[in-house]
Amino acid sequence: MKLYAARYLVTQNDRREVFSPGAIAVDGRFVADAGSAAAVMARHGGAAVEDLGESVLLPGFVNAHAHVPMSAFRGLGDDKPLMAWLNEDIFTREAKWKPGGIERAARASLEEMLATGTTSFFDMYMLEENVFRAADETGIRGLLGENVTRFFPQLGGETEEALFSRIRENASAWRAHPRLDAAVAPHAVYTTDPGLLKRARALADDLGCVFAMHMAETKGETADCIAARGMRPVQYCDSLGILDSRTTLFHCVDVDDRDIDTLARRGCAVVTNPASNLKLASGVAPVAKMLAAGVNVAIGTDGPASNNAQNMVRETWLAALVGKCAAGAPDAMTAQMALDMATRGGAAALHEPKAGSLAPGFYADFFALSLDCPHMRPVNDIVSNVVYCATGLENTLTVVDGREVWRGPAKGGLPIAV
Amino acid sequence: MKLYAARYLVTQNDRREVFSPGAIAVDGRFVADAGSAAAVMARHGGAAVEDLGESVLLPGFVNAHAHVPMSAFRGLGDDKPLMAWLNEDIFTREAKWKPGGIERAARASLEEMLATGTTSFFDMYMLEENVFRAADETGIRGLLGENVTRFFPQLGGETEEALFSRIRENASAWRAHPRLDAAVAPHAVYTTDPGLLKRARALADDLGCVFAMHMAETKGETADCIAARGMRPVQYCDSLGILDSRTTLFHCVDVDDRDIDTLARRGCAVVTNPASNLKLASGVAPVAKMLAAGVNVAIGTDGPASNNAQNMVRETWLAALVGKCAAGAPDAMTAQMALDMATRGGAAALHEPKAGSLAPGFYADFFALSLDCPHMRPVNDIVSNVVYCATGLENTLTVVDGREVWRGPAKGGLPIAV
Repeated sequence: MKLYAARYLVTQNDRREVFSPGAIAVDGRFVADAGSAAAVMARHGGAAVEDLGESVLLPGFVNAHAHVPMSAFRGLGDDKPLMAWLNEDIFTREAKWKPGGIERAARASLEEMLATGTTSFFDMYMLEENVFRAADETGIRGLLGENVTRFFPQLGGETEEALFSRIRENASAWRAHPRLDAAVAPHAVYTTDPGLLKRARALADDLGCVFAMHMAETKGETADCIAARGMRPVQYCDSLGILDSRTTLFHCVDVDDRDIDTLARRGCAVVTNPASNLKLASGVAPVAKMLAAGVNVAIGTDGPASNNAQNMVRETWLAALVGKCAAGAPDAMTAQMALDMATRGGAAALHEPKAGSLAPGFYADFFALSLDCPHMRPVNDIVSNVVYCATGLENTLTVVDGREVWRGPAKGGLPIAV
Repeated sequence: MKLYAARYLVTQNDRREVFSPGAIAVDGRFVADAGSAAAVMARHGGAAVEDLGESVLLPGFVNAHAHVPMSAFRGLGDDKPLMAWLNEDIFTREAKWKPGGIERAARASLEEMLATGTTSFFDMYMLEENVFRAADETGIRGLLGENVTRFFPQLGGETEEALFSRIRENASAWRAHPRLDAAVAPHAVYTTDPGLLKRARALADDLGCVFAMHMAETKGETADCIAARGMRPVQYCDSLGILDSRTTLFHCVDVDDRDIDTLARRGCAVVTNPASNLKLASGVAPVAKMLAAGVNVAIGTDGPASNNAQNMVRETWLAALVGKCAAGAPDAMTAQMALDMATRGGAAALHEPKAGSLAPGFYADFFALSLDCPHMRPVNDIVSNVVYCATGLENTLTVVDGREVWRGPAKGGLPIAV
C-alpha cells in the first residue's frame, strides 16, 4: 500500500469529485481509496506517503487512436495534400521497415505518452507484434489493433491467410498480459471490401477482441464510398452488420444526423482526433452533437506523422476549443466534457471499464501535473487549468497499473533578476 | 561579447537560414553575428561560449495581443457566452482592481511569456502604468496600449480628458526606455464613437505612437456596426480615416474580401488569436487569405481569461492548424508561415523592425527549446518540430535585449525501468 497526496485530486469518478488536498491509496495494481488527504491518510495510517505538493493528481489520459511507430516519420511531408504525403513520404519509407525499427519507433512514442500523462493507448499499425513488445517494456496499458487491408504495398504481399494467422497468434500470445490486449482493426472502407470486413468482424468475434476502423475521416471518403457502395461509410458498414457495442471508430468527421443516430443505436465508441483532422484539412468532427446523441466520444492524437506529437493534454485542449467553435457556442464543450472524453471516454473506447477514474477498484493509472509554473496559477477552477492551461510537460510522475513508470524533473524555472 | 551555440539555429532571417550546429554572437543589446557554430566561433575567438547542446535557438516569439493583468481571472467563467462571462465574472472583478493587483497579475503573465519563449508583447488594458512597471521589472520588450472607451464601468468614471492626460504621461515617462513604448488603443467600434476614435487617432499621431484596436472579432460586432454606422467595422474605421501603416488590428475574424483589400491598401497589421476565437466560438480568421493579399499577420494569445495561457508556442501550433482547416488545404498554412507570423509578423505588428530575426543588427531577443524530449525527436525538419511538436515548456533560456531574463530546468524526464 502506498499513498500519493497532492494539492488537488481530480477523481473523474461518477460524481466528478475534486478534493483539495486530496490523496489516493494504491494497493498493488488498483486504487484502494481516494478522497481528501486527511481522510485517506487517517484510513491508512501505516502506509508510506508520497506528497506531490503543489500538483494535481488525475486519472491517466487515454490516447484512443494512434499509430505509434510513425514517430520515425515525424516532420516528413508536412503541409502536403494527403495523397502526395502518403506516396512521396510515407509508403516509400514503410516499405523499408525492419522489425527492430518499428519497435524502437513505437517505444519513442510510448515514452512521449508516458511523459505527458497518457497511461493507455489504442494503436493501429502493421506488424503489431513489435508494438506489443515496446508496450510491454515501457509499462503502458494498451489495446493493439493489427491493420487489415486488401493490399499491403508496404509489406511485399503478406496473404490474407498469413495476416489472419498472425493476428490470432498475437492475440493468443498477449491474452494473459495484465495491461495489453489485441484488437482487430480493418483500416477503412476504402482499403477493404465487404468480404474482408465481414471476415475481420468474424475474427474479432471469434477471438473476443474489440473491432475498430478508421471511419468517415473526410468528405472524399464519403463521396468515394457512395460511388463504390451506394451508401455513406457508416451506413455501408451498418449494412454489413459489423457495427456493435464492441466497436470503436476513429475520426467520424463527416457523419450526418442519420450516421450519428446509427452510431448511437449500435453503441459504437467514437474517437476524435482534432489535430490530425485540422492538419490534413479534413474538417472538424461534430463532437458535441455525437455526445448529445449519447455516443461515447474519446480523444486520440492519431500518428506522430500527422499531429505531430502524442500529447493527450495538448489534444484535450484542442478538442475543447474546436468543439466549441464547431457547435458555435462556448458552452457546447466545457472543460469538464473535454476531460471526460480524455479519461472516461477513452476507457470506454478501449472497452476497459476499470480505467478512466481514480476510485476504489479502478486501475492505479494516474499522473501528476505540477502547479508550480506561472501558467497554472491562480487556481480558480482546477479542471479549467488542466484543460485550458496545461501543456502536458508539467507532468512529474506517471503511474500505470500501480507501477511508477516515468518521473520528470521539477518544474517552474527561474526568472532571473535584471 | 558572448556566443550561444546549439544543435540548431533557426535564424528567421530574410533567407530563412537554418544552421546546424549554429551560433550567435551577442554584443550588448544586439546580435553581432549569426551562422554556423564553427564560423561564428572562428570569427569571435576570444569570446565566452555557452553551448546549449541539443537545443534549437530561435528568435523570441512576439505575443502581439494580450491583456496581461487578466491572469487574475484565469478559469473564471469559462464556457459561458461572452456577455454572461463579462457581466458575471469580469466586470464585477475589474471594478475592484487595486493598482498593486494589476501590477502583480501583469507580472505573472509576463513571467509565463518569458518562460515559454516570448520576448515581446503588445498589451491592451486599463491603468497601463502598472503594466509598464511589471514589464520594466521582468525584462520583456513591449508595446503597451491604454484602453480607450467611451465608458469606464470598471474605473468609476475617469473623464476622457483625464484618460488622455494619463496616456500622454505614460508615453512621455517611458519614451526613452530601451524596451518599452506606449500605444494608443481604442477598445473597439462598439465601445467608442466616431469622435472618440478620431481624437484617439489624433493623439496617437501627436505622440508618434502606434494605433491599435480590436476589430471585427465576431459576426455580432459586424451586424451591430452595420446597424449603428451603416458599414462593416473595417469600412467604418476606414471612412473615419483612422487606418494606416502604423495601425495594428486585433482579431479580424469576420472580414470579407473588401475588408481584406482595405487592410492591405492601408498597410494595417493584423493579429490573429486563434485560441480565444475558438474558445468564445467567435470563428476562425481567414489568415491565409489575408497573407495572400499582402496583409502582415501576427499571432497573439489574447488575455489569460479567454485563452487561458499566454504561451505563444502553443498558439503558433494552433494558428498553423486552424489556418490549414479554414483554407481547406494542408498546404495553405505551412509550418514556416506560422513561424514567420510568430516572429517576423509579430515584429511588424509591434512596428519594431529590429525584432523577429536573429541576424546582425537585430535585438538579441531569443530562446532555446530543448530537443532532449521524446516528442522533439527525430529531427527530420527542425521548423516542423518547433511548430507542430513543441509546447513551449521545452524552453531552457530566454534572452531579451541581450540580457538573460529566464532559465528553466533541464528537460527530458526519466523513464523508469519496469
